[in-house]
Amino acid sequence: MNWEANVRKVVPYTPGEQPKIKNIIKLNTNENPYPPAPAVAERIKETDVSDYRKYPDPTCSVLVDAIADYYNVDKKNVFVGVGSDDVLAMAFLAFFNSEKPVLFPDITYSFYDVWAQLYRIPYRQVPLKDDFTIDVDDYTGYGAGGSKASDEQKKEGCGGIVIANPNAPTGVFLGLSAIEKIVADNRDVVVIVDEAYVDFGAESALPLINKYDNLLVVQTFSKSRSMAGMRIGYAFGSEKLIKYLSDVKFSFNSYTMNMPSLELGALAIADKEYFEETRNKIIATRERTKVKLKELGFEFADSKTNFIFVKHPQRSGKEIFDALRQRNIIVRRWDIERISEYLRISIGTDEEMDQLIKALKEELKKC
Amino acid sequence: MNWEANVRKVVPYTPGEQPKIKNIIKLNTNENPYPPAPAVAERIKETDVSDYRKYPDPTCSVLVDAIADYYNVDKKNVFVGVGSDDVLAMAFLAFFNSEKPVLFPDITYSFYDVWAQLYRIPYRQVPLKDDFTIDVDDYTGYGAGGSKASDEQKKEGCGGIVIANPNAPTGVFLGLSAIEKIVADNRDVVVIVDEAYVDFGAESALPLINKYDNLLVVQTFSKSRSMAGMRIGYAFGSEKLIKYLSDVKFSFNSYTMNMPSLELGALAIADKEYFEETRNKIIATRERTKVKLKELGFEFADSKTNFIFVKHPQRSGKEIFDALRQRNIIVRRWDIERISEYLRISIGTDEEMDQLIKALKEELKKC
Repeated sequence: MNWEANVRKVVPYTPGEQPKIKNIIKLNTNENPYPPAPAVAERIKETDVSDYRKYPDPTCSVLVDAIADYYNVDKKNVFVGVGSDDVLAMAFLAFFNSEKPVLFPDITYSFYDVWAQLYRIPYRQVPLKDDFTIDVDDYTGYGAGGSKASDEQKKEGCGGIVIANPNAPTGVFLGLSAIEKIVADNRDVVVIVDEAYVDFGAESALPLINKYDNLLVVQTFSKSRSMAGMRIGYAFGSEKLIKYLSDVKFSFNSYTMNMPSLELGALAIADKEYFEETRNKIIATRERTKVKLKELGFEFADSKTNFIFVKHPQRSGKEIFDALRQRNIIVRRWDIERISEYLRISIGTDEEMDQLIKALKEELKKC
Repeated sequence: MNWEANVRKVVPYTPGEQPKIKNIIKLNTNENPYPPAPAVAERIKETDVSDYRKYPDPTCSVLVDAIADYYNVDKKNVFVGVGSDDVLAMAFLAFFNSEKPVLFPDITYSFYDVWAQLYRIPYRQVPLKDDFTIDVDDYTGYGAGGSKASDEQKKEGCGGIVIANPNAPTGVFLGLSAIEKIVADNRDVVVIVDEAYVDFGAESALPLINKYDNLLVVQTFSKSRSMAGMRIGYAFGSEKLIKYLSDVKFSFNSYTMNMPSLELGALAIADKEYFEETRNKIIATRERTKVKLKELGFEFADSKTNFIFVKHPQRSGKEIFDALRQRNIIVRRWDIERISEYLRISIGTDEEMDQLIKALKEELKKC
């Protein structure tokens, strides 16, 4: 027998391209076009790198405290990790150990099924409605609370739920009352609400954590906090939930967050004014871009995120993608049947979006 | 049914204390007493934090290339992670999926059984000999190659092997020919050699990766490279082994290494001269400390690491530990039967070790 027989073989997630060439307009990974809060640049110059010889604080207290302060919650309700991917990966491992399938939409963050496969968690992908909205009835009726699931679904049951809200790559937001209905109806499993994009105009489920101890709300520094390069994610939940999650994290790696992440993350989140200023700029650019895309005939659901998920009735997604790429403008596209005609366009600066619109206008004139 | 029924309940690893008080002599977590290579301090002042708004390179190429260059291997043989803990955690998940037990010593890095429990991997802890050395015969005879395991052991079989070399917390080194014997005799499973402390005078199994595609050699920046606070670990293996490990990593988190880790890690490893200078200083301090500890009556196996694992025939481990703590000197001790009388003392500067020796001398005079 060969050693390869015991290898966990997986099909990994494919991240968006990070090209090393300069002079491109990069609208493919929902990065923030503005730099991190000014205190980050100031503090880094004062770094005493001799501190790096020591291990970082395993409890991440400086960062946890800063997040707890900002959101006005107890630090026992806060968990931090190496980007929200790390937080979500730990949560899947910690909470989804049922033989019943975990539920999430068919069109959503494409890492969910990768984690499920990695940990051999059964899962069922629930189709979004035609307009890419979530039907709450698809996620209720499994436990004692409701009865709207089909007989077959009820028989199969539910081992947990993951909802990206706003959803990705669609950008569509599900209202808080719908989220609460799902959480309330599934008290016997953990419900994860992945709010990577919540700061661009949507509403967080954070206030619900005190009412529902089975709710985990996950957020990130990668989008609205301009710190994708630092890898900082965080989550809110009941003290009990966070304790279980921390136990799994401490069984995996005691020190996941390095010193710069802890220190610079804590400084960045404290600057509420800069955060409001930059996210409002991005929201304004998004709304302005929506108008122009509509003028060009693009179709899209309303987006509450820092991207817009568009298709054009006359031109294929692949065609537009390739044409933009030729002009050094990179957007994101998936070879997935239901969304193969769509492009996900991140919101950059006004200038970048003007160049995008100009390029699209020229391309659409062709033939 | 409550959601807690599906939680993965674990007993996490307990890291060494990271006290926030100043003016202590910290000899409890095997940190390097010297700062990182000078280029780290220079480069950090020049950081353009606006880069942080973007995701880091998921392939970690700047760091992987620097490690490949330094060790003169192909980059396809190199894997990097958030400290060697992250590398080892991924390796356990990727490679140990047999129903047969993974083998490691009873006294070794106490994270191995935690990972095994986290992932529900069966394992067997093999007792070290009385002098804390490894009996190679305990790790051979499972496959086609040998026949030295007991009938019962052979029946049970082996799903993989993990050897810390030099071992922790004993400091004892197993020669390369013995390591090769273990790897060669277990070609049907993956053998991990965890070399966190190898740079302080031991010999690496790295040259064996070309001969044995089932060997993973794990190292770290946390000890000999003075960068515990940055969380950088790495591993060497056959191209096939590294590919499987990378697939699992990319199924967990695309971007585990943040920008400062990648950039500063690459700079640090390139400075061979500084590395040689500081590790030689630590080796010299260790040898000097051994002489003084022996004069005080301490007993210990020879150490090839940046710590010494000692006991005193007249005084209990707990008693000495507490007395040092009173004097603001922190060492490490475990409440594990076989080693409860031992203290693991990290090698600091000459001055720190002089203060330790002075404190021990005074304490041993008492009663």
